Amino acid sequence: MAEASRTSEARRDAVFGRWVVFSPARSRRPTDLKSHAPTNPSPGDGDAPRPSCPFCLGREPECAPEIFRVPAPDTPGEAPSPWRIRVIENLFPALRRDAEPPAPEEEPADVGECAVRGFGFHDVVIETPRHDVRLWDLDAEGVRDVLLAYARRVQQLSEHRAVKYVQVFKNHGASAGASMAHSHSQMLGTPFVPPSVTSRLNCMKEVFERTGKCSLCEIQSKDSLVSETPNFLAIVPFGASYPFEMWIIPRQHGSYFHEIDQDKALDLGSLLKSMLQKLCKQLNDPPFNYMVHSAPFGIASSCLPYTHWFLQIVPQLSVIGGFEMGSGCYINPVFPEDAAKILREIDCSI
Amino acid sequence: MAEASRTSEARRDAVFGRWVVFSPARSRRPTDLKSHAPTNPSPGDGDAPRPSCPFCLGREPECAPEIFRVPAPDTPGEAPSPWRIRVIENLFPALRRDAEPPAPEEEPADVGECAVRGFGFHDVVIETPRHDVRLWDLDAEGVRDVLLAYARRVQQLSEHRAVKYVQVFKNHGASAGASMAHSHSQMLGTPFVPPSVTSRLNCMKEVFERTGKCSLCEIQSKDSLVSETPNFLAIVPFGASYPFEMWIIPRQHGSYFHEIDQDKALDLGSLLKSMLQKLCKQLNDPPFNYMVHSAPFGIASSCLPYTHWFLQIVPQLSVIGGFEMGSGCYINPVFPEDAAKILREIDCSI
Repeated sequence: MAEASRTSEARRDAVFGRWVVFSPARSRRPTDLKSHAPTNPSPGDGDAPRPSCPFCLGREPECAPEIFRVPAPDTPGEAPSPWRIRVIENLFPALRRDAEPPAPEEEPADVGECAVRGFGFHDVVIETPRHDVRLWDLDAEGVRDVLLAYARRVQQLSEHRAVKYVQVFKNHGASAGASMAHSHSQMLGTPFVPPSVTSRLNCMKEVFERTGKCSLCEIQSKDSLVSETPNFLAIVPFGASYPFEMWIIPRQHGSYFHEIDQDKALDLGSLLKSMLQKLCKQLNDPPFNYMVHSAPFGIASSCLPYTHWFLQIVPQLSVIGGFEMGSGCYINPVFPEDAAKILREIDCSI
Repeated sequence: MAEASRTSEARRDAVFGRWVVFSPARSRRPTDLKSHAPTNPSPGDGDAPRPSCPFCLGREPECAPEIFRVPAPDTPGEAPSPWRIRVIENLFPALRRDAEPPAPEEEPADVGECAVRGFGFHDVVIETPRHDVRLWDLDAEGVRDVLLAYARRVQQLSEHRAVKYVQVFKNHGASAGASMAHSHSQMLGTPFVPPSVTSRLNCMKEVFERTGKCSLCEIQSKDSLVSETPNFLAIVPFGASYPFEMWIIPRQHGSYFHEIDQDKALDLGSLLKSMLQKLCKQLNDPPFNYMVHSAPFGIASSCLPYTHWFLQIVPQLSVIGGFEMGSGCYINPVFPEDAAKILREIDCSI
């Protein structure tokens, strides 16, 4: 125990500016952390709709209103085509599209206490009509279409004057916050720039002012590669807050996820599928979250050189306690180099 | 559902500068959130040491080295007195006191990636020799002595050149991060100022620069009182990130928790005991964390007017998902006004 822990190290990353303590003594082997309670039964135990699941094919009337579906519905009068993806309103929205948005003169000052009406958008992306199919069971084209559905909906929300940011995210497994087992993602369009977005942009701005470089363009040489494609890198970042956290980063500098094109979305779809397969196989299907980190809408052109979107995948393998909640500093028992090696080793090309 | 949710609101607080979405539609009644799995068996099922618990009386040799105990040991040669509190090293420290601290010239720049050796202190405060006694089962004097043990140890750590901050915290219940059931707290002395401490101080500084006032001195009139004593207020803050989160705030402005005196520690002990009893009774003994938010050591005197220490109590009643992880913005189904009313109503003066 003493041997291993002699290598403890604290690191600060150049994207969020967060300190992380790497403390391998607190877990014997990195894979001791694998999930003890796999999230889902294996697929293949039938693709019949579940009687209680409103996200299944044929249960559409039980859902909140549809925003769009993929493929688009057929001509009126003809038999409806089956859908592969549906983007719908959340039946229990945290923010409400029918609330009055704040008028420009009501917008809060930069600092201090304030309250605004709970206006915003809270949408759900049903990734498949089948109850027992997980996102990474789709083929790369299927994952591409889910990503393009995110991008299309973010684009729509960006056109609303009062929406400042859209957080796209996926919760997989109840302990990661998923209230429905049927594979889905969510997005929240907020009337404010969320706090972690502000602090990420401030950190990247400071790095840019000091070095003249974008933190994420620079990350390639320093971090631990898991996999790569022509357009994307999958890494375990230098300052990963969570064990086996991964980032998928576009090689080409760009501020906005939703500007992704078809080809890059296919490339990303294939890499995301492969990374989720690796997590599932190597860590026993853990609950996880992924989040798209993009830029707020309408930023000044001076911000463009240091805003670079990426996707963060976080398996839920450890408990957050008072140290993390109080300090914002995480204790990670697995060094990024070790996590990347374990994730690289498993072969998911079937 | 639609009725209740019409009142959704987003709020930003003046201490952390975080946005929170209050969305009562997502939980029917605030007390629906009460814990479904109480953390501990009731006390009173015997005070015998547990065979496997090294924190119990008589098992001291199984622990990492002791730093001090309360009361202090008797004169050598006499029979040892029983202890009420022990402050010991953590057997599995996240940061190590025997690592080389960074030399002044090695200290990292303000921004960008960096790594330092895992130097620091990770201590444990065993709050009672009895396995089945919880912190709030002690009398007010007993809780006072635990608080004074924190303060004494923080004072000791403040004298080490390379320690920049000490995070004092308590994890109660496995899902709140406690690996031992025996009542204890922890503290981590870090060689850097943790990220949430930096962002809290930056936020309070901005408020001070704009208004000339300390965010926490000002909080008294706007927030939801649960209880008060001559020296402290217990409130549910205006921008509570978590349901039933509470803050205990000293009325007198002061930067450092560890400068607390005996009288104020007794007053705080009595209030903390009562707040933890309320949580336990009203919310079915939920897992919880509490954190002392103090100032980094050696701050400039210009920071003193806006640094004000306080104690934050967070019951673990909801799951953190991808929205919260990605955006840093929390969805709280219970308005602070409602939480405060529920917590006020229950009588814990026995």
